[in-house]
Amino acid sequence: MEHLLIKSAKKESIERIPVWIMRQAGRYLKEYREIREKYDFFTMCKTPNLAVKVSMQPIDILDVDAGIIFSDILIPVEAMGIKVTFEKDHGPKLHNPISNYSDVEKLIIPEPEKDMPFVGESIKLFKKELNNRKPVIGFSGAPWTLASYMIEGGGSKNHLKIKSMMINDPRAFSLLMEKLTETVIKHLYSQIKAGSDLVQLFDTWAGVLSPKEYNDFVFPYQKRIIQELKKLSDVPISLYINNSGNILEKMSDTGADVISLDWMIDIAKAKKVIGDKVSIQGNLDPCYLFGEPEFVKQKTLDILNIFGKNTGYIFNLGHGILPNTPVENVKLMVETVINF
Amino acid sequence: MEHLLIKSAKKESIERIPVWIMRQAGRYLKEYREIREKYDFFTMCKTPNLAVKVSMQPIDILDVDAGIIFSDILIPVEAMGIKVTFEKDHGPKLHNPISNYSDVEKLIIPEPEKDMPFVGESIKLFKKELNNRKPVIGFSGAPWTLASYMIEGGGSKNHLKIKSMMINDPRAFSLLMEKLTETVIKHLYSQIKAGSDLVQLFDTWAGVLSPKEYNDFVFPYQKRIIQELKKLSDVPISLYINNSGNILEKMSDTGADVISLDWMIDIAKAKKVIGDKVSIQGNLDPCYLFGEPEFVKQKTLDILNIFGKNTGYIFNLGHGILPNTPVENVKLMVETVINF
Repeated sequence: MEHLLIKSAKKESIERIPVWIMRQAGRYLKEYREIREKYDFFTMCKTPNLAVKVSMQPIDILDVDAGIIFSDILIPVEAMGIKVTFEKDHGPKLHNPISNYSDVEKLIIPEPEKDMPFVGESIKLFKKELNNRKPVIGFSGAPWTLASYMIEGGGSKNHLKIKSMMINDPRAFSLLMEKLTETVIKHLYSQIKAGSDLVQLFDTWAGVLSPKEYNDFVFPYQKRIIQELKKLSDVPISLYINNSGNILEKMSDTGADVISLDWMIDIAKAKKVIGDKVSIQGNLDPCYLFGEPEFVKQKTLDILNIFGKNTGYIFNLGHGILPNTPVENVKLMVETVINF
Repeated sequence: MEHLLIKSAKKESIERIPVWIMRQAGRYLKEYREIREKYDFFTMCKTPNLAVKVSMQPIDILDVDAGIIFSDILIPVEAMGIKVTFEKDHGPKLHNPISNYSDVEKLIIPEPEKDMPFVGESIKLFKKELNNRKPVIGFSGAPWTLASYMIEGGGSKNHLKIKSMMINDPRAFSLLMEKLTETVIKHLYSQIKAGSDLVQLFDTWAGVLSPKEYNDFVFPYQKRIIQELKKLSDVPISLYINNSGNILEKMSDTGADVISLDWMIDIAKAKKVIGDKVSIQGNLDPCYLFGEPEFVKQKTLDILNIFGKNTGYIFNLGHGILPNTPVENVKLMVETVINF
């Protein structure tokens, strides 16, 4: 029997709307913080026992409708040959950022089973622990977003370095995007082979471009990844872009089964733009979870009421859950969806 | 005779498309850096001689079609009672941020002529220096954006503190927005009385909200400011919001004469959405100015070709010009507009 969340992703009939939370294994849970205090972030990602332990927490505590394997979008970037560290309160730091064609040439395309074996192992262990109670979500950053980290050397305010390379060194930019595309396909396919029931592609920064640039420089790679994976398996694929209001229609042409919306879009309007082609996921503002319980409940219901009991919708936030979110509100939100 | 830029803002017939640049008196000019090295940022804002000196630079160097008075959106915030300093490479720091109703109650509504006299003085001096060669643009931050700085204590990634106040302490939030609205009206009107030919309202952070929240918590204050100023003068008003693709239509209902677009919007599509109601300004990606000359020229022409020689358009960037922008490219962009 197929899981509720997978059925809604595939637009098959469902009993109720499913729910999970981006970054659901995270700092808002004291059980997560207890483990995180003892190990550094990458160690947790790379140790199947630890990764599965924290991946199980939101299942046990919140009873969400899917588990997402604990990992990081920069895992394959490191495997490509970039040194990544996490600075306290400053996000990731990439120590040998890409600045020209020769840097790109040196990057390897990792073989997941050999170069990041812990990813598949974690998923297999997670599947075993879950014992088919819930589906497992695998994920990867998408080429543009990973390229941005690799060129900027970390997070960026205006993404000037990657845009400059895109404009002024198309040869280096294309080779980087090609290598990342191949890497992401292999990375996601290995997660599917290990047992992922759905995979999500995070192109968080693709919304910093004009629609024309998205169309020319990002969309083709997203589409190729999705099309290649579709040839290899029938696992549904979800695509998330932050700030996607201007490119929603195009985004749905990638062939993704699910479009994961940020919170800045009117979800009713997005439903009209996307039409019946694909399923929708999102888009509660993560900041709403800092409101009073009645407010949290109402905002959750406002979204649920747009979809009623129809399939093709997966409840989620419009971005990752914030570190200090009150757990009681998260529980209330999940219960509101489950009891709807 | 009315200036070209003012005529295009008012949709009166024009000989060619006008051009100015957000943050045109800025670090990309070596002449600006030479002065900036000697004085701190707020001293420059508060000393009419210095403010006018740097405000004149883009006129003399680039021959843009308007001067904007050198100032900062936090000038009235300081006058309201908040201590503001600028930390090197970290943007503004507000030392006594607002966290509750009592903090808001203590804020004063400044009388511009008494509490920020240098603003009006600078504009008068700027007008005199320009001797009617170019129109003068005055500006102010809008309530939401100023409130965000005041509550967050500086720039913010997710604007959680202001959203939390908006959700959980509507009494404090509304009083703050009311006080800011009154402050902004007085601030802009004093700039109009001093001789500004157009004023621009910067609500840079209003795009971090959902369309419904924009509608409920931001739009009414923007509209009130614009409507009140319209009662007092016929100087055209421009409204800028970063990330406004989802709220364009509503934005044009504020009564603004000009909608200033960010670079993430397809300007041809925006033109259709906004219709003939208001003029449009923008939206070249500031990063494009780091391209090769041919690229800069082409991207400039791509936008110009959408408007042809019609009135109702003002060429500008989609955001402030970046500090390291090559001046030669800026000159080329301005010349391309002027010669179009």
